[in-house]
This record gives sequence, structure tokens and C-alpha cells, in this order.
Amino acid sequence: MINKEDILFFQSISTCLTELTDLERYSHDETEDLQSIPGIVIKPSSSQEISAILRYCNERKIPVTPAGARTGLSGGAIPVTNGVLLSTELLNRILSVDTNNHQVITEPGVITQVLQEKVAEYGLFYPPDPASKGSCFIGGNISENSGGPKAVKYGVTSDYVLNLEVVLPNGEVIWTGANVLKNATGYNLTQLIVGSEGTLGVVTKIVLKLIPHPSNDLLLLVPFRKMEQAAEAVAEIFKAGITPSGLEFMERDALIWTTEFLGSVDLDVHDDHEAHLLIEVDGFDPEQLMSEMEKIMTVLESFDIDEPLFAESKAQKDALWKLRRSVGEAVKSNSIYKEEDTVVPRYQLPQLLKAVKSIGDQYGFKSVCYGHAGDGNLHVNIIKGNMNDEQWENELPKAISELFKEVVKLGGTLSGEHGIGLVQKQYMPIAFPEITLDLMRGIKKVFDPNNIMNPGKIF
Amino acid sequence: MINKEDILFFQSISTCLTELTDLERYSHDETEDLQSIPGIVIKPSSSQEISAILRYCNERKIPVTPAGARTGLSGGAIPVTNGVLLSTELLNRILSVDTNNHQVITEPGVITQVLQEKVAEYGLFYPPDPASKGSCFIGGNISENSGGPKAVKYGVTSDYVLNLEVVLPNGEVIWTGANVLKNATGYNLTQLIVGSEGTLGVVTKIVLKLIPHPSNDLLLLVPFRKMEQAAEAVAEIFKAGITPSGLEFMERDALIWTTEFLGSVDLDVHDDHEAHLLIEVDGFDPEQLMSEMEKIMTVLESFDIDEPLFAESKAQKDALWKLRRSVGEAVKSNSIYKEEDTVVPRYQLPQLLKAVKSIGDQYGFKSVCYGHAGDGNLHVNIIKGNMNDEQWENELPKAISELFKEVVKLGGTLSGEHGIGLVQKQYMPIAFPEITLDLMRGIKKVFDPNNIMNPGKIF
Repeated sequence: MINKEDILFFQSISTCLTELTDLERYSHDETEDLQSIPGIVIKPSSSQEISAILRYCNERKIPVTPAGARTGLSGGAIPVTNGVLLSTELLNRILSVDTNNHQVITEPGVITQVLQEKVAEYGLFYPPDPASKGSCFIGGNISENSGGPKAVKYGVTSDYVLNLEVVLPNGEVIWTGANVLKNATGYNLTQLIVGSEGTLGVVTKIVLKLIPHPSNDLLLLVPFRKMEQAAEAVAEIFKAGITPSGLEFMERDALIWTTEFLGSVDLDVHDDHEAHLLIEVDGFDPEQLMSEMEKIMTVLESFDIDEPLFAESKAQKDALWKLRRSVGEAVKSNSIYKEEDTVVPRYQLPQLLKAVKSIGDQYGFKSVCYGHAGDGNLHVNIIKGNMNDEQWENELPKAISELFKEVVKLGGTLSGEHGIGLVQKQYMPIAFPEITLDLMRGIKKVFDPNNIMNPGKIF
Repeated sequence: MINKEDILFFQSISTCLTELTDLERYSHDETEDLQSIPGIVIKPSSSQEISAILRYCNERKIPVTPAGARTGLSGGAIPVTNGVLLSTELLNRILSVDTNNHQVITEPGVITQVLQEKVAEYGLFYPPDPASKGSCFIGGNISENSGGPKAVKYGVTSDYVLNLEVVLPNGEVIWTGANVLKNATGYNLTQLIVGSEGTLGVVTKIVLKLIPHPSNDLLLLVPFRKMEQAAEAVAEIFKAGITPSGLEFMERDALIWTTEFLGSVDLDVHDDHEAHLLIEVDGFDPEQLMSEMEKIMTVLESFDIDEPLFAESKAQKDALWKLRRSVGEAVKSNSIYKEEDTVVPRYQLPQLLKAVKSIGDQYGFKSVCYGHAGDGNLHVNIIKGNMNDEQWENELPKAISELFKEVVKLGGTLSGEHGIGLVQKQYMPIAFPEITLDLMRGIKKVFDPNNIMNPGKIF
């Protein structure tokens, strides 16, 4: 797709990699089982460089896949074979922390946790915290509209994005909005770019809203003897008027596999513990948090639970959160698997769980479920286990289709926070009829008539 | 534009009005000085009827302007002369309050306050509360992405919209998303429709997120001897870690004109009171609210303020809020005026105020400023006063252009919550370069290739 002349041009603009070992390193993200070798990896260090690169590629219809830290789980950053992989890793500066307006302006290649820690120095809080926050880039979070455990109280990435600098496929550089908290000035291009998975342009500067950083939190791990009761308890907590800052569900195997994988956590999982909820409240007033936890305990007492574990130190809280954050990796280390990112209205969670297990029984697969139950966002890790390759390749997609149809029937959709990318796009017609997909394709064409930006993703 | 045959068709589908007195009634919204007589007013009572109407109009390129309660301030609901005015007033049912998931599904023609009161019966809260909440429709709020005083803590309309049923110009009916709190499934069509001012389709069903209703609030009216200090105090309150549920600014004349207009409020405005802040905190714990108010008082003590008025009863709170909500009407009753809806990062508010007054001095107009200072959203009411018609028609637009240029320089934009509609569209090139406006026009064309939906608005 790209030739020697192209490579010379790119090298005249930006840092480039062309050695096969390097190209291989950039050929995949964290999505199981998928890779594709780019023709070149370009690491621009400014909007201007990106503008020159895109203009060149647009004229020659060379496909460009923007990539952040490549921690994605839907294949959004997997390049086109022999196309351009455009890495944002050198765009890694936090440009300004505006303590007067509670805003931060950053480049996309900043690690999310680094950004969070930087603004926390000023008493400010950027809440979205995907499990990969220690390695993922804020730019990738914007591409996929990432969430994380805090989303249940504080919202997802899109809720914090005020304004974006974007290089369009034709090389033009625009700002999508303004640095303001409310905006009724034309179409909302900002929110159109958030979650568009690099298919409309390359985000080069990001203006985020910040909030005061809560000073206190409390954390509770609750074992349930019936998995579905754990799911039911989730909606009951909200109905009691409490908005926890974390409300995570982990099925038995998720917890056991992860304690074994980490080796470091000492947790007494009884034979009759079918599932756990990890529940956090946060705020500024310790007494109020205690009273919220008491209300939560009152709700939980009407379910068949075992003794809850109340985290007594920062170290214990960190250990429990590390456990939750490592479930994905633990499952990955255990078996070939496929991860689905289903999301439903939260009260429908028990029905979703039932559907997952019943479809699993029917198609002969085992699943490990966990996720952001407070948002109704359930990660369903389908384990290959004893399935043979033929079943895995041909039967499983039918099972996943059935699952997604059930999800849509429950008022939900395909992805809560991982995006569609490559691996879910075949299922998009379950979420949207052709007329709606045509609107999305039409919007894509307005931004990118030559289809050079991350082609083959979403649609 | 429409003929007798068209009218017979519309009458076969829906309730219609064709008498001149009726047409005149629907020829304007609350925007000063603008009207245009439609050829027919159609009041459909279902998505199906709207679908049939739009399909018919699309084939014949008949312009259709959707209208809610016509309380808008940017001319968004003003019809094309002799075109179709499509009123959503019969789509006035709240379809379901889902207490399990904290969601409400409603039709667009429900009055915002009626919706708020309905969900409050279940202990639930829909926060966006434009000044016109007692008469405006929720559908109009979605068209203009309305805000209101609570936005400073709880966000604007767009923050609560989960999913929309939309009739497209070709008559197809789609849902834009799913009834979920997080969504990473394709482009965000939901947020593209919010704030699109009826130019992309007709919203017929709305799924809104709700939150637990706060049980307590405290309200304080603070007189400042220096107007700019009132604006400065706004950012200082946030920097102290407090997020008020209301933080409103009223310039001296706004308060005096409104007390006179209402006649019912007894307020002692001294000669040296240049401006007032109205400050509300809300939540669940009365003690915590008291402690927040104390922190706010500590911040205020460093400014030149007079004795604050602490509202001691529900009646007094209602009276103060009524005062604030009536400023627009009071100014309107006093003089011919033009209202601008400027928004900047909140710390830039003093600079914005300075710019308003200095441009006023230069062009010879007086202005009354008030608004949602916590969001940096300042309503600038430009008073005709002694300006002659020539100055008002020809010089004032130059002054407004200068003001908007200053706003954009400060990181802000043209409209925070009123929309662009008819009256601000000439200023759009100040907010966005042609390349960005072309993207918006391209999106419009994807949805509405024949340009029948509310033509002439925004662009």
C-alpha cells in the first residue's frame, strides 16, 4: 500500500519506524488473537506534522490508523496491512492545568493515570479510570469513550470533554467547540468525535472539565450466595437514594482466577459464594460516608449474603481495587477467550446474567462475568475451554448474536466502554437498522470522503 | 409554498389550523421582534402521523418547522412564511417513570416543570430548569440544549438524554442509541440531535436519566458594591472546593427592574449595590449544607459586600427564585432589547463584563447583565433606550460582532443555552471557520438532503 517514496516523505516529516520487529510490535492492541502489520509507524510530535501526514495520505488514499497505548479491547488500533500506523506517543505533554476554571488542556499521548495524578496535585479530579489507567492514553479513552468503576457516580469520558483540536483527513486543523461548561452553538461536533474510534480525524489537543477531588472513601466487598441476588442488589442500592462511587460485580470464577493470578491477595472465598459486589462511596465528609455505608448495609441485609469485608486501610483498599482491575488479565492468562462489553439498564442485570448462562449452556461455552454493575455494564468473558476450533470460529458468533439480541431486547446495546472497532462490527446490525447505520456512514463520508481514517472499523 | 391539495392531505392525517388568527399565534416565539406566518399549523398526535407528514413534505420540498411551547429566545421555532408549522403540543404524555432504573420516557410536548413534578413524586430529580420551565416543553429543551440555574452543579439537558426516537425528514423513524448510562456503540447520534434545533428531524420520544432528589437546600442573596468583584467571587467559590447548586449573577438594574415589574418582592437595594449573587447549595444532609454555606461566606468576606440575605422559609426562597426567573420578562416589559447568551470559562467572567460595558460605551448602548455565573453564562440584554432605529439596525450588529469576538478570545462562544436559531446565525463565522461550518452543513445534508427541516436556522 505504501511505497519507498512514501516512506521517504514520512521520514522527512516525523520520527518513523520501519524495521519488521518494530512493525510487529505495533501490529496489535490488547484484543485477543488479532494482528496486522503496518507498512510504517509514524510518531509525529505536533498537529502540524499530523496535518502534513494526513494531507499526503488523503491525496494518495493511504489508510491511516491512529493509535494510543494500544490497550484497546475491540481492535480499534489495529492497522491496515501495509498502511500507516500513526502513534500519538510523542504527543505526551499536559499543556496546562487551569486551576481558575477547573480545566486541563492535554495532548492525547498522556497516560490517563499520569493526568489524574497531575491534576490531583491541585486538589482536582478527573474521574474516568478504565482498568488500564496505568498504561492507556487519554486520547484512546476519547476514541473509545472509556468508562471505568467511577463512571457510576461521575460519568464516562464524554462527560468531561469540553473541546477538542482535531486534524481532519484533508489536513485542516479545527477546534470542535469552546472551553465552556455549556454550549448551544451549532451541532455538537465534540461529542461526535468522542467515541468515533479514530475514524473521523486525529485528536491532537483535549480540553477536559475537572471537579474538586473527594477527600474520603469507604470500600466494602460483599459475598453473595446467589449470583442473581448480587445483580438485584445493585438496583436496590440506587433505589435507596445512594449513588456509590463504585459498584462492581465479580462472579465466583473471576475472583478466584484473579486471586490465583495475582498470588498476593489473601481472600477467603467460600464454596457457597457465587458472586461478590465491591462497593465504594466517596465524598468530603467521613460521617456522611459512614451513614451511606450503613444505608447500603441495610439494603444488603435483605439478600442472602455472607460476612462483608470492610477495607480498613489504604493498603487494603488498593489490594481490593487491584484485584478488580486485574480480572481481565487473569482471565486472559487462563484461557483463550473473547470479551463482550454488554450494557443494559441496571435493573435488567439479573436477566442479562441469566441469558448469558443459558446461551452458554445451549452452545457449550463457559463464561466469566464481571464489570460495572452500577452502570448495567457487564463484561462477559467467553472461555474457549473445551470448545474445538470449528465451534469457536463458527458456532460462537451465533451465540454472541443471540446474546446481543437479548441485550437489545432488554433496552441495552453492544458496547458500554470498549467500542466496536474490528471485533464487534459484524454485530452492529443488531443494535441499529440499516437506515441508522447509513446516517453514520454518511457522517463518516462528510469528514473522510476518501475513507483513509482507520478504515474498516465500526461499520 | 403549500397549496389547497397539501392542506387537504395534512387535514386527512392530523388536527390542523388554517385560520389567520391561529396562524398568527404560531408565527413567533419569545424572540423579540420576529415573526413569519406559516401556511398551516399541524398538530400530530403520534410518530406515525409525523412520519406521514414529513414523507409528504420531503417529496414536495415543503419546509417544516417543528415547534414546542415557542418560548425560545433565538427564533428557532419561527416558521418559514407559508410553510408548515409542526406543533408537538398534542404529544404531551409522560409514557413511563422507570423507578427501577431511574429513567423517564416522555413525549416532547410535556411542560418541563410538569415532568419534574411527576418524577419528584417518586423521589427522583430531573435537574435542568430553564427560566421558562413552567411553560416550555421538554422537546424544546432538547432542541436548544437548555440549561438553567441548576446546570452549574447538575449539568444541562444533554447530560440527561440517553436515547431519542426521531422521525427523519424522509419519514423513517429511528432510535438514536439505547436506554443505557454508558454507550460506546457507533457515533453518538443522540448528542448530535440534542441542540440541533429541529434541523435534523423531529424528536418524538425521549429517554432521560434521573437522579435521587436532594432533600434540602439553602439560599443566600449577596449584595456586592463592585460588580466585577461579584464576578470574581464566582470562581473563588469553586476554588474553595464548593459546587453550589445555583450561582446566579444579577446586575443592579436587573434586580431593580424586576422588583418593580413583580411589585411583590420587598428588597432593600442600596445605592451602592452594583450587583448581587444568588447562591444555593443543595443535598441530603442539612449540617453539611450549613458547613458549605459557611465556607462560601468565608470566601465572600474577602470582597466588598453588604449584609447577605439568608432565605429563612420556603416562601422566601420561592420569592428570590421568582425574582431571578423574571429578569428576562422584566427587561422585556421595560424597553425594546436584544438578548445575547454569551458563555466563557467562569474565571473570565469579570473580563467579559468589562468588555460588555466598554463596547456599550463605544456604541452608545446600555445593557443589563445577569445569568448563570457559575457556568460563565452571562445573558447580556442590550437596551434600545436612546438609540435611533438606524443605529439599532445597522450599528448594533457591529457592536455584537465585537462582543462575540471578545467572547471567543476569552475561550467562550456565542450561546450557552438559547441556541443560534435565526437571530445569531450571522455571527456563526466568529465561532467557527468555514471548514467547520462546512462539516455541520455536510451533516445536515446527510439527514436532510432536501433541506426541509427548519431551513434557515443555525447556518
